[in-house]
Amino acid sequence: MDELRRLSLNQATIPSWSLPEAADGCAKAGLGWIGVWRDRLAEVGIAAATRSIRDAGIGVSSLLRGGFFDASESTARRRHMDGNRRAVEEAAALQAKTLVLVCGPAAGRDLEGARAYIAEAIAELRDFAAPCGVALGIEPMHPVYCADRSAVVTLRQALALAAPHPQAEVGVVIDAYHVWWDPDLRAEVAAARGRIQGYHVCDWLVPPPDHLNGRGMMGDGVIDLRGLRRMVDEAGYDGPIEAEIFNPTVWALAGNEALDLVCRRYLEHVVA
Amino acid sequence: MDELRRLSLNQATIPSWSLPEAADGCAKAGLGWIGVWRDRLAEVGIAAATRSIRDAGIGVSSLLRGGFFDASESTARRRHMDGNRRAVEEAAALQAKTLVLVCGPAAGRDLEGARAYIAEAIAELRDFAAPCGVALGIEPMHPVYCADRSAVVTLRQALALAAPHPQAEVGVVIDAYHVWWDPDLRAEVAAARGRIQGYHVCDWLVPPPDHLNGRGMMGDGVIDLRGLRRMVDEAGYDGPIEAEIFNPTVWALAGNEALDLVCRRYLEHVVA
Repeated sequence: MDELRRLSLNQATIPSWSLPEAADGCAKAGLGWIGVWRDRLAEVGIAAATRSIRDAGIGVSSLLRGGFFDASESTARRRHMDGNRRAVEEAAALQAKTLVLVCGPAAGRDLEGARAYIAEAIAELRDFAAPCGVALGIEPMHPVYCADRSAVVTLRQALALAAPHPQAEVGVVIDAYHVWWDPDLRAEVAAARGRIQGYHVCDWLVPPPDHLNGRGMMGDGVIDLRGLRRMVDEAGYDGPIEAEIFNPTVWALAGNEALDLVCRRYLEHVVA
Repeated sequence: MDELRRLSLNQATIPSWSLPEAADGCAKAGLGWIGVWRDRLAEVGIAAATRSIRDAGIGVSSLLRGGFFDASESTARRRHMDGNRRAVEEAAALQAKTLVLVCGPAAGRDLEGARAYIAEAIAELRDFAAPCGVALGIEPMHPVYCADRSAVVTLRQALALAAPHPQAEVGVVIDAYHVWWDPDLRAEVAAARGRIQGYHVCDWLVPPPDHLNGRGMMGDGVIDLRGLRRMVDEAGYDGPIEAEIFNPTVWALAGNEALDLVCRRYLEHVVA
């Protein structure tokens, strides 16, 4: 089905599949894209990964994840930056549309200081990524993760971090789960025009069953996914829509069953 | 100790105490205020409650809670509004500084619609509360509660809801737990000048141990409580600071022990 060509399977949704298995599964189901995790890439190596993705005839919507600019002292910061440069090289090899940046929490209680360093670190990484042809995608995370994952918590804030850089080099990744609550969402998505490097979907379950792995299958929660998809489209984004669902119930399904469910829910709740 | 006069004990922090016990406990510990919950008020009745609070020589910093403007149809909306009017009458009887409004989530997926009704409902309730001399305090809640407690999730949004009304009649209640993550917090707190009806403290634990009852004792988490208290002070707020801590570990302590701990942590992490 043609509408599925825009769908991307984020590997975290079906962790039972290796990268080649996931690429093959996507191709058979008619998906056009895959979101690749670095640890699953490392399992098979760049050469085998690139080959399996090419053989599947799909593209890489994103490489997960760079960032984690949360070290408080310079030695650890340099070590993290080395890791980020390797992530850029992997993204270049995979021709990923973006390297997703999860920016990291504050190391202590100094949120403003942490946010200032994140801006510096993005600029430093961009100087390495741009010549490699790799776009950095800043992913604002839900404020529930402010203390343990990302001091960048709103789309407005992510856009302000991207603003000093050329559009093609630093943009934002919008994930429905992370931004749906934002009272200024409509204006912020419109303001993201030209900066949207990726769009991720899953659903917000009520109440949230788990801090990290409680994300819902599309349609099982309260997010107006169709409305948000329209906003993103109206902001000029026509790239892949990536299903990223951390959920043990989905993980317990056989890979093909899980992907079939993702496709049906995507068509029903995101596209229709 | 004089510095404790500004501290208020929110009853939810020590649920083992009845309202008269809590009022007495506050007085003995040197606190100047108490935050009263409606269900605990109902247990003893207005007359006994008023007497115990007067005998303790303390004031009521807030009555918890009104709001819950989350019904989707008019019959339920009228019933909720009746309940809110009773809450206003109780706040008037207690001479509470504010009636805290938890505005409720969206009934379905229409967040914008829910937010529009919240604005209408606040205006309606204000028409009843103002002649009673009761100030309404809109409490923005952490976005993690957007689906099950409050569609009002930022201080900016709460201030916009209050803006059409006179300062003394509709304001905001700032809770450190709900707002600490906000990248625009400093500007928003400054913009709240004249509208701050209350300031609540507890801490954000990492990772959050529980959706509803995982709030931390001051000093056990990552919030810069001293910095935030300074912001609130600089915005001209000189009213009570209320310790509201939903946490089973605190609840397991004997009342006096829990209050002693609250006082020590307040002096160490909020005031000093």
